[in-house]
Amino acid sequence: MSRFWSDVIHRLTPYIPGEQPAHANPVKLNTNENPYPPSPRVVDAIRRELDQDTLRKYPDPESCALRQTVARYHGLSSEQVFVGNGSDEVLAHVFQALLKHDRPVRFPDISYSFYPVYARLYGVAFEAKPLDRDFTINIDDYAPSGGPVLLPNPNAPTGLALRLTDIARLLTENPGFVVVIDEAYVDFGAESAVTLIPSHPNLLVVQTTSKARSLAGMRVGFALGNEALIHALTRVKDSFNSYPIDRLAQVAAVAAYEDDAWFRMTCAKVVKSRERLAKGLRAQGFEVTPSTANFVFARHPARDATTLTALLRAQGIFVRHFDLPRINQHLRISVGTDDECDALLRSLRSILATYEPYPTTENI
Amino acid sequence: MSRFWSDVIHRLTPYIPGEQPAHANPVKLNTNENPYPPSPRVVDAIRRELDQDTLRKYPDPESCALRQTVARYHGLSSEQVFVGNGSDEVLAHVFQALLKHDRPVRFPDISYSFYPVYARLYGVAFEAKPLDRDFTINIDDYAPSGGPVLLPNPNAPTGLALRLTDIARLLTENPGFVVVIDEAYVDFGAESAVTLIPSHPNLLVVQTTSKARSLAGMRVGFALGNEALIHALTRVKDSFNSYPIDRLAQVAAVAAYEDDAWFRMTCAKVVKSRERLAKGLRAQGFEVTPSTANFVFARHPARDATTLTALLRAQGIFVRHFDLPRINQHLRISVGTDDECDALLRSLRSILATYEPYPTTENI
Repeated sequence: MSRFWSDVIHRLTPYIPGEQPAHANPVKLNTNENPYPPSPRVVDAIRRELDQDTLRKYPDPESCALRQTVARYHGLSSEQVFVGNGSDEVLAHVFQALLKHDRPVRFPDISYSFYPVYARLYGVAFEAKPLDRDFTINIDDYAPSGGPVLLPNPNAPTGLALRLTDIARLLTENPGFVVVIDEAYVDFGAESAVTLIPSHPNLLVVQTTSKARSLAGMRVGFALGNEALIHALTRVKDSFNSYPIDRLAQVAAVAAYEDDAWFRMTCAKVVKSRERLAKGLRAQGFEVTPSTANFVFARHPARDATTLTALLRAQGIFVRHFDLPRINQHLRISVGTDDECDALLRSLRSILATYEPYPTTENI
Repeated sequence: MSRFWSDVIHRLTPYIPGEQPAHANPVKLNTNENPYPPSPRVVDAIRRELDQDTLRKYPDPESCALRQTVARYHGLSSEQVFVGNGSDEVLAHVFQALLKHDRPVRFPDISYSFYPVYARLYGVAFEAKPLDRDFTINIDDYAPSGGPVLLPNPNAPTGLALRLTDIARLLTENPGFVVVIDEAYVDFGAESAVTLIPSHPNLLVVQTTSKARSLAGMRVGFALGNEALIHALTRVKDSFNSYPIDRLAQVAAVAAYEDDAWFRMTCAKVVKSRERLAKGLRAQGFEVTPSTANFVFARHPARDATTLTALLRAQGIFVRHFDLPRINQHLRISVGTDDECDALLRSLRSILATYEPYPTTENI
């Protein structure tokens, strides 16, 4: 607290990202990183840029080559693509540019926990709609027109996907407001809404290179949608930071999109490992949601999740636990390599064997 | 314009950055880039990071190693250093976190033209104080307590520096509000206010790696100041984007700060070329302000600046011209290598010889 602060600073509740372990050789299954590296073409492209001795020069402020590459990939025009410094920055601009209206933006109560943080930063009114008992999103909570909507597909941390027909109905029944679909995890099994962009001027799709394209370290995210929506984001960006994407990040992301075979191969490997991991967890008594993301969301009916997280951590295995209502007995476990998943399963087996069943908070 | 836009979007006047010429081999003296590359250690550090195959993993969200390096360099603690995605992003966060109060923020009317853009983005009231007739900042316009202050030192595009005693007086006479000193160009001859940080809790200094450290392509900027001011910026950052600085940018900036000899050498070369360029311009009849930055601000008393800019452009030489009151007859010319400066001087000589004296707008 300080008298020098603007008023809004006192009201913020900053987001807390997953831990970056100082542990020497962690099994890091807590921030949904891809266990496989990006396409070798990415590193080649960065090395080529370094050879050209351009670091002293500003990058292209409009990321034209990258926007063209992504537009072509999705069958869109460059004017339908916005690039930001990770999809977190894109979402921040979306809150400021498109979600501040008289009617509150609606999003699920159990979802990406950054959404309410953005809302408070920009003074955007919001309504958190409870998920159903099985953690599914009830589309009827959002379809009737009444304000902007923000839905992650698949949802995090549940991993559950929406049907494209439900999204189409939402867009049609809510024509006066923007509907944002946050597709950070879409490439691992859900169906992208990008195909609906030409027919729906109120649709904005947010994507990232951090998950399926293995570029979390480089910070590149996108918004895809009607030109008027993209124009709003560009106006914010050009009033905030002219050059948000550095030279190496721009060439890295272009190269990642150009190697589609690599992308498909790593996605397929992650999906296969996810099903194997889910099976292994169920065999140990865990309840596991049918995830379409690169993580699983699991709960043991007789072991406390906070304790499990701490015991795994003591063995150098990092998973994510959210101390939030309804999900404080769940673990969100990123899909690692099969070796990493096996290390987790082994540790869990020994923990479950050694420690007595523990009354969980929900049981009390 | 779109019904989907938040209200604020309609009111923005986005900043327009200097042109990135498509010209094959431009003499690019329009965006104040350093004509010399960053330290070779920068590229080495990036290559080492690439060898470690870490791009799939998120970067350190707090840029700890970088903040420690910069803190040590300036004799500060890490808690007195904030890192952003270029000093443009840092300044945006400063407007939102520290400059929105009942009293307007004051800054010069002729200055970095992004300042009023930020103010409109965040609804920050501002007062633009006219420079004196000789383009100097009159410190008496700012010293009496009455609201936050933002001063670039040296000022852009004039290149004129403030005295440190004047900044100290400003800090002392305005204790209730933040005083931000934007030192993007400080390393080319002005005196940094960083030494005043321990004695002035209301001082925030903004710096960048884009100019003197030749890293415009990598987007790393800083704010330096009292822990409470840095904490406000961190609260905004963690409500906006957890990971604003990618892995390669973090190691690049650390390496740039570690090679102080390279930094001093390139600064000295730029300063020497600046004086040579100023002399060459004066020999052709230009009036040139005594710049302490990596650009000169020059006016020919009998040639129209818009025409000069266009004629230079036709020869592949890019300088910056601002179509703004009082300075629309000036050129802002970045200091290039001596060869680049000579190319400019040659072109100007032929232009001045070929074209008749042109009645300038101010003469009319």
